[in-house]
Amino acid sequence: MKKVFDVLLAHNETKAEAFINEVNGKNPLFICTIGTTETAKIPGISAAGEHPEFTDYTPPADAELLLLGKCKCIKGVPVTPSGIPTPALISMSALKLADIPILVASAGLKVKPYVPFLDLGGSPGRDIRTGNAVDNVDEVVQRAIIAGKQLAKTADYLVIGESIPGGTTTALGVLSAMGVKAEGKVSSSMPDNPHRLKTEITSTGLSAAKERFGSLADNPVRAISCLGDPMMPAVAGLVIGAAAQVPVLMAGGTQMSAVLAIVKALNEDVLCNVAIGTTRWIINDKTSDLKGIVSQIANVPILASDIGFGGSKFYGLKAYEEGIVKEGVGAGGAAVAAMAKVGGAITKEMLLKEIERNYELLMEKK
Amino acid sequence: MKKVFDVLLAHNETKAEAFINEVNGKNPLFICTIGTTETAKIPGISAAGEHPEFTDYTPPADAELLLLGKCKCIKGVPVTPSGIPTPALISMSALKLADIPILVASAGLKVKPYVPFLDLGGSPGRDIRTGNAVDNVDEVVQRAIIAGKQLAKTADYLVIGESIPGGTTTALGVLSAMGVKAEGKVSSSMPDNPHRLKTEITSTGLSAAKERFGSLADNPVRAISCLGDPMMPAVAGLVIGAAAQVPVLMAGGTQMSAVLAIVKALNEDVLCNVAIGTTRWIINDKTSDLKGIVSQIANVPILASDIGFGGSKFYGLKAYEEGIVKEGVGAGGAAVAAMAKVGGAITKEMLLKEIERNYELLMEKK
Repeated sequence: MKKVFDVLLAHNETKAEAFINEVNGKNPLFICTIGTTETAKIPGISAAGEHPEFTDYTPPADAELLLLGKCKCIKGVPVTPSGIPTPALISMSALKLADIPILVASAGLKVKPYVPFLDLGGSPGRDIRTGNAVDNVDEVVQRAIIAGKQLAKTADYLVIGESIPGGTTTALGVLSAMGVKAEGKVSSSMPDNPHRLKTEITSTGLSAAKERFGSLADNPVRAISCLGDPMMPAVAGLVIGAAAQVPVLMAGGTQMSAVLAIVKALNEDVLCNVAIGTTRWIINDKTSDLKGIVSQIANVPILASDIGFGGSKFYGLKAYEEGIVKEGVGAGGAAVAAMAKVGGAITKEMLLKEIERNYELLMEKK
Repeated sequence: MKKVFDVLLAHNETKAEAFINEVNGKNPLFICTIGTTETAKIPGISAAGEHPEFTDYTPPADAELLLLGKCKCIKGVPVTPSGIPTPALISMSALKLADIPILVASAGLKVKPYVPFLDLGGSPGRDIRTGNAVDNVDEVVQRAIIAGKQLAKTADYLVIGESIPGGTTTALGVLSAMGVKAEGKVSSSMPDNPHRLKTEITSTGLSAAKERFGSLADNPVRAISCLGDPMMPAVAGLVIGAAAQVPVLMAGGTQMSAVLAIVKALNEDVLCNVAIGTTRWIINDKTSDLKGIVSQIANVPILASDIGFGGSKFYGLKAYEEGIVKEGVGAGGAAVAAMAKVGGAITKEMLLKEIERNYELLMEKK
């Protein structure tokens, strides 16, 4: 796979190369959009917390880690049940190395972070099996568009990531409602991707909403309201507001493909300014298919940071190579942006060292 | 008084000229910090609302006007009891003309705006006569410092304004507690400045807090907690976080002198990067003395937009020349920044035309 710097041109190579060249040497703003959904608490769905209730704390803890270099609402850092650390560790290390400004945006939270955050007017999401998952979707989209327009004036381009446990299940829900074949294709933070469970949840949600596969292809607001999560209208609005003026890197895995479908349905014109930035772990994942989803939606490029943890001395990082965590908190996009900001002067080796340094510091503190 | 563009070098001329030259042609970020205090509801204190309860709506309505060009939480726009429009009209016109990005920050609100806002963790303020006016001051300062640090990376410099009715009374309270002689010197949005009432309120508050003039000179956090308002820790933190990296224009009248005293007591080093930006109406006001307050605190420059409404065809604007409103929502600083961004290509005549155009549009809508 062709690379520019340590960034893989993972999909739509020509466009991917044009995107990385366009942002080469430029100053981005990184926005981490955090939210929660009760969907994450369905047993077997998320690895983002040791107990289902912990998923309420993961997004604010990630936000604190990004801005403070440590968490305040929990001790230590968010980890999977087996002790593997949050991908916010990657994002934080990359953004710090490249001195990229960070803004946290709340899309709807049960627990608020002890750091400043942009309030986009959303509220926490419900279990999508109810078919009535998110309130106030249209208003959040509109507010996020306003924010995106203003923030686009403060940077050469935006990198927009997310932290919302359960988000690949809601992604499957919205993609299905909008007629994108994503069954068996969405990613998971666990090595054993619970596809059957996600499909069941989506079916239950569609029935409860009296909808079916594809019935909401032209109604993304209702698709989110029924089967989505609060992150989606927030990120979609930010992308729409910003991408009319500057390039936008949607930083995430298959969750961002659901946002892509929403953006396309709301304002297709901005897609020429949009790319997806993710990790090598997502691109190489045998249990999901980001490219297969994206190519059904739009002809946007995918870039992936080439960073790997195979050579790390820490088990907690090495585990990423076994398909645990893989992506989140905009980790892949943040790494891409850090490398691009300095014309490749930050390499994957340098980034790994910084991540290991921060990992050690945080685990000591714990 | 010497001018650069249509900006008066109103105080500390050499430093003022250096500041305007430093920001000439540069891209600022405008932050409007909004909050409420029960102090505004003391009869006779504020002109920011027709009825005391309206003061809860003025800051969010100002924020909406800045971002949407119209208000959502109220009909029309905030006006004084005699129908004179909010200075947000000036800020909005200036920022729009010069295409300056806007961020709204909430320092503590009773009524939330229907637009995105940065939540700094504060809560609405109480009547300062209780001597127990603001909660969580230290935490808000710390969070605002974090935000200021990040936002400083997104712009060449920051312009930080405020909208908080009752703010000149709380300014007198904090300045007095910190030993700055401000009695009879703070400004008012009304032509008859109720100095005696403000002094009484401050005395009552000092007694209730078991403090006296100057007793909190070295304890700005307690000065705000006892006699201040929520805007103060938010703006002070933003200034401290940002001014370590980039210039900061504190956009306001005598309310900003209270913040200046707080910033000095918390981190004097940043003051070399700070100026106050205000209006000609404040500089020429016979009922207040911004320079007299500032010169007791620190050797920072004051710049003032030279815009006047004497030649306006609208009574609602002409009234500004009679000492009504005068300043607020960062009007003076926004005008200074708009002129400086384009090297003076925006003149006071052009700005007046834009303000009149928006005034007409908004009054028609009403």
